[in-house]
Amino acid sequence: MQILITGGAGFVGSTLARTLLARGQLAGRPLRRLVLADQVAPAPDLCTDPRVQARTGPLLDQCAALRDEPFDGVFHLASAVSGECELDFDLGLRSNLDSTRALLDALRARTLAGHTPARLVFSSSVAVYGPDGDRPLPPLVADDTLPAPQTSYGVQKLVCEHLIADYTRKGFIDGRSARLMTVTVRPGRPNGAASSFFSGIIREPLAGLPALCPVDAQVSHPMASPAGTVAGLIAVYEATPEALGGRLALNLPALNVRVADMLDALEAVAGPQVRALVRFEKDPRIADIVARWPQGATAARAAALGLRPEPDFATIIRQYIADCAARPDAAQTLHALPR
Amino acid sequence: MQILITGGAGFVGSTLARTLLARGQLAGRPLRRLVLADQVAPAPDLCTDPRVQARTGPLLDQCAALRDEPFDGVFHLASAVSGECELDFDLGLRSNLDSTRALLDALRARTLAGHTPARLVFSSSVAVYGPDGDRPLPPLVADDTLPAPQTSYGVQKLVCEHLIADYTRKGFIDGRSARLMTVTVRPGRPNGAASSFFSGIIREPLAGLPALCPVDAQVSHPMASPAGTVAGLIAVYEATPEALGGRLALNLPALNVRVADMLDALEAVAGPQVRALVRFEKDPRIADIVARWPQGATAARAAALGLRPEPDFATIIRQYIADCAARPDAAQTLHALPR
Repeated sequence: MQILITGGAGFVGSTLARTLLARGQLAGRPLRRLVLADQVAPAPDLCTDPRVQARTGPLLDQCAALRDEPFDGVFHLASAVSGECELDFDLGLRSNLDSTRALLDALRARTLAGHTPARLVFSSSVAVYGPDGDRPLPPLVADDTLPAPQTSYGVQKLVCEHLIADYTRKGFIDGRSARLMTVTVRPGRPNGAASSFFSGIIREPLAGLPALCPVDAQVSHPMASPAGTVAGLIAVYEATPEALGGRLALNLPALNVRVADMLDALEAVAGPQVRALVRFEKDPRIADIVARWPQGATAARAAALGLRPEPDFATIIRQYIADCAARPDAAQTLHALPR
Repeated sequence: MQILITGGAGFVGSTLARTLLARGQLAGRPLRRLVLADQVAPAPDLCTDPRVQARTGPLLDQCAALRDEPFDGVFHLASAVSGECELDFDLGLRSNLDSTRALLDALRARTLAGHTPARLVFSSSVAVYGPDGDRPLPPLVADDTLPAPQTSYGVQKLVCEHLIADYTRKGFIDGRSARLMTVTVRPGRPNGAASSFFSGIIREPLAGLPALCPVDAQVSHPMASPAGTVAGLIAVYEATPEALGGRLALNLPALNVRVADMLDALEAVAGPQVRALVRFEKDPRIADIVARWPQGATAARAAALGLRPEPDFATIIRQYIADCAARPDAAQTLHALPR
């Protein structure tokens, strides 16, 4: 089994890579080779695994060469994020649309040369949903809610979903699109995603740092943990086409929580002095993007694959703390917690 | 007022051009220049109008030069048709997706240079709808039915709708997408569209020629006349953004009829000997494509713009006969009718 992860040095990509390497198999076949393609090099622990190969550079430049590589499957996670795409329209089109098209055409060329079509899991996003005109979003978006994306990022994800459905219908690939919920708590530094603060308001206080929340405490949003997200991507990869129930994208499981619920959970896990590090200061640019996102989601098709959301946000925080505790920089990332 | 029609030498494009030239104005402003871009030259009657300029060649090659032209509005009708796109995947992507993207980027470049964003009406299609997995199509597809296109043509139309919505949201254009129903009765010869027979089973018998119907008589489909379709495109152009009710595409009005109803209307208008020229001979390729199309459509947002479908199919046939009677080749096109 030879697998490609695009965006393989990113947070979700790295977490997926570690999970696959630890499992040692995918869809019942041993994992022999794992290629991590990204703009930057993967984390050192990944590079030391003899099954791992790194490919560093823009995906768009790498795709032509992929025609000659015998990948059984691809997790296509590479993407410019929502905030970046709003600020730089060309970047979004190039990174999210053109690169996906080049990847699909590389896989198609291999199929047309007589090889078995590669299986592909595309990480789409809950950002495909939005209100339009006098058509408001339902309180919870479902697999069959009409997408009306209100960001360039959401549009590009939706467009790729439909291209992947068509390449699949034609037999060029065996493609599946999974709509990721906001992945929380992400380690590291804030990124350009408009959703970055959903991690920041937990991560920074746990490290003893102040954090700004750019939206109101009553804002509700569908979340998933890193481990839950990776489990969802793997389950979608391993599902039969019949179990998937169609070529259209499906939602991954969501825990629908308000910012206030997140901070209550933070206080329950880490104490009031940690929660007190979060200060509300509205950022109109971020608040405007988030206001056009769903407040929550259901995931009936994912449930049929056995996937469930986390039971509560405290579980997600404890998972983050456990992940940090295993890292060399644990003292910094969990500075506010007693040893 | 300077207007560009892409696909301006095609049937709908030519009909739109004649209608606009006869009206002499659009959105209350005099029509000063009408550019017809197409792979082939427009009809001679159009070329003699001093307001008309023809641009012949692939749209993709013409787009870069469009950046420097002061168009107030664009009707973007150029497209490879459904049957062609199923047979030649690359042709569909190039003609329908890449060309639209190049057109949008040309209009965007002009806006970024400081000009008023051009208004653009995109001819999308009822082919964006389809069944997927265990999600069947409703008997009538509505403006807010979830699109699940089952042809490459339908996918490309849907993808362009979403790109146009995003270029509009960003202020690069003032775009609107109208989903055309199957335009019937088209004059001339059959084309590569899988829907071509819907015209053929009326047009050929009226000309005294035999016609094959590749699907069952009970097949139902949403239709519109050429004049009704052009009236719809103009109304969508002239509508205010508020009247349109959102950036997503809207259905144009549909007369939902069965093949049997069409042939009954043909007999009522032209007699049983004309109807007898139609023979049923199933074509699995065509029948398979048509089976994945809607059986009928509603058009609530178009109705709010004052647009209505034709009252019955006999009205559409009589309109075709009147149009043919005005043409120099009337004797051939209406051979089966008494003078």
